[in-house]
Amino acid sequence: MLGLLRAHGPLNRGELGRRCGLSRTTLHEALSGLLAAGAVVTAAPDDGPRGRGRPAGKLALNTAVGQAVGIDFARRAVHVAAVDVTYEVLGTAGEAHAPGLPWPDRVALAERLVRRVVGGEPWLRALRGVGVGLVGPVAGAAAVAGVESLLRDRFGGPVLLDNNTRLAALAESTWGAAAGAQDVLYLRLSYGVGGGVVAGGALHRGADGVSGEIGHIPVDPEGRRCECGGTGCLETVASIRAVLDAYRARGGRGDSLPALMAAVEAGDPLALGLLRDVGVQIGRVLAALSNAIGPRVIAIGGELAEIGAPLLGPVQEALHAGAVPISRHRLTLRRAALGDVAGALGGVALAMGESPLLSRYAAAEPETGPAGSRAGRYGAVAAGRRLALTG
Amino acid sequence: MLGLLRAHGPLNRGELGRRCGLSRTTLHEALSGLLAAGAVVTAAPDDGPRGRGRPAGKLALNTAVGQAVGIDFARRAVHVAAVDVTYEVLGTAGEAHAPGLPWPDRVALAERLVRRVVGGEPWLRALRGVGVGLVGPVAGAAAVAGVESLLRDRFGGPVLLDNNTRLAALAESTWGAAAGAQDVLYLRLSYGVGGGVVAGGALHRGADGVSGEIGHIPVDPEGRRCECGGTGCLETVASIRAVLDAYRARGGRGDSLPALMAAVEAGDPLALGLLRDVGVQIGRVLAALSNAIGPRVIAIGGELAEIGAPLLGPVQEALHAGAVPISRHRLTLRRAALGDVAGALGGVALAMGESPLLSRYAAAEPETGPAGSRAGRYGAVAAGRRLALTG
Repeated sequence: MLGLLRAHGPLNRGELGRRCGLSRTTLHEALSGLLAAGAVVTAAPDDGPRGRGRPAGKLALNTAVGQAVGIDFARRAVHVAAVDVTYEVLGTAGEAHAPGLPWPDRVALAERLVRRVVGGEPWLRALRGVGVGLVGPVAGAAAVAGVESLLRDRFGGPVLLDNNTRLAALAESTWGAAAGAQDVLYLRLSYGVGGGVVAGGALHRGADGVSGEIGHIPVDPEGRRCECGGTGCLETVASIRAVLDAYRARGGRGDSLPALMAAVEAGDPLALGLLRDVGVQIGRVLAALSNAIGPRVIAIGGELAEIGAPLLGPVQEALHAGAVPISRHRLTLRRAALGDVAGALGGVALAMGESPLLSRYAAAEPETGPAGSRAGRYGAVAAGRRLALTG
Repeated sequence: MLGLLRAHGPLNRGELGRRCGLSRTTLHEALSGLLAAGAVVTAAPDDGPRGRGRPAGKLALNTAVGQAVGIDFARRAVHVAAVDVTYEVLGTAGEAHAPGLPWPDRVALAERLVRRVVGGEPWLRALRGVGVGLVGPVAGAAAVAGVESLLRDRFGGPVLLDNNTRLAALAESTWGAAAGAQDVLYLRLSYGVGGGVVAGGALHRGADGVSGEIGHIPVDPEGRRCECGGTGCLETVASIRAVLDAYRARGGRGDSLPALMAAVEAGDPLALGLLRDVGVQIGRVLAALSNAIGPRVIAIGGELAEIGAPLLGPVQEALHAGAVPISRHRLTLRRAALGDVAGALGGVALAMGESPLLSRYAAAEPETGPAGSRAGRYGAVAAGRRLALTG
């Protein structure tokens, strides 16, 4: 029913009944629930013929009521996003904070940002869920239970948590660079290197929540020691810090990403050669993973990806060289599209796709795809609107 | 209902009705369908009190009727397996043939083998499906449509096809070395090197059916040219041919797997050193994949895995060194358990899990797991019986 109202705009009860093929009694019952929850409201007066006792006025989605909130607790910033019942992304917001800010303060900051985006209390009244991204593996993390209860106290709805890089993968395959693809590999090149896998339309989690730890794939057995305890992980080669260190070790000047990017712009052969080497390492890892799990789209995000062609060109070449022939020309490498808010948007997708409340509504929305399938739900979200990014 | 009869043995209508909580009318309707399909029969006379007009006799699963057949068309052999309505593996059979045997002859051989296992025509009367494994990528393969129609003509039921190595992965995670695990990585070391991924309880297929092409992951950019057109793929290092070539290149004597295995038994340092090197290469690839997709169990099959510890020890060490700490001690490496019949058994699992007919029955079996979830169905299969291998 919500799907019909989303697709067709306001409808009267008769139209709605015909289109969803429900009996008048069933329709009445289902509508009562939606009206009581505030998800549906009576809009403009009905200009069709009035029946005996049939209530006037068209039924419409209530955009004053929210559907899902996403929150990304990054290392030094909080980002939030919110989606209303029409599946429109209402907005996003973010704010940096000092490292090590205590959890209650970070949750308070998140709440302030959410209120800024959604306007006020009524919007939050009937949330289907809050999806939350956290740094690091979520399974077994001590902070998790505490954060969950803090958030439940503030927002009421069910709270779902996952790793924030993985949620970024989900967001990119919902609204972003890989929108609509069922099999997606996401790589984030930042101060850390991480990723996420969407397999058959669903976020892949793996045993013990280990999935997408692409930064800790060893690429050089003789390489540097990694924070994780391993040796020569991709992160020791392709993180911002690693690239800057290597640049200086090769005699380059400058110790910041903007300095490196300026050198690249100026055509510095040292910087370009380094990025080629790093790009080849990344491309080889992506080729290995592509052969094993066959993504349709690989999306690369994080600050380092903003360097563009000097890094991503060599990535693409090495990927092409290493991918099996059948996928070589069907596999697309793209820059991630959602920037800093990817994790928060992924939280929204998590809440919409996995909240116990949604499954209830999903059954009433046959046109969004196979009943209850995640693919169908995300597909509907993706079709609803591609997020236009503003900065 | 089938699940109840599987779990409790024969039940009378009253007991069955109480246990599944259905009204007498609904029960009657559902039972009529199962009786008509021959899946359920009236067994021994009921020794409980007779009600007005209630039919005597307990209801039992009809083991004379088959549920699913699996067929693996390997390069030079056909293997088959069959499962009855109690989820018991009735048996398996296999026969080698000349390379290049035409498809109609291979299908005829498969039919002979199936009849040998199942006894005769009546067993095949109400098949839920036939699951078929083929060599190479199945999507777009020219042989596929022809094979499918040949098989449909012979067996009647729906015919489902997939890559046979991938089906072996499904079988190992259903009945074999990884029985019951939801996230499984399977590697097959034979004349070719391939594999399969089970993710969240479901066989992973990837875009364009590319999934599990582990043999074509490049491990040495300076390595040998591979059949696939790539350079230094794992297959150029870890296939039987590659290992034997390397053994001779290092000065070893003997050019067959038995000769190599004899050298290993005799403690030949050349052979042991080579297997160590190969094992490390394999282990590094497995570590990379583990970090990206987090399997609970890695199962290694194929003739080369029969070498055992001299190869699998180094695999385990390199895997341990390269896996992220969180999964290092939770990830299990095992030798595959199902041998040559893994592909055929995977065909059975494919037919049981994905046949349109099964979903109908699955709805009536709440105790097998979340309604309609593949995990639930495979779980039930795994719990039903671990296949005892005989040779």
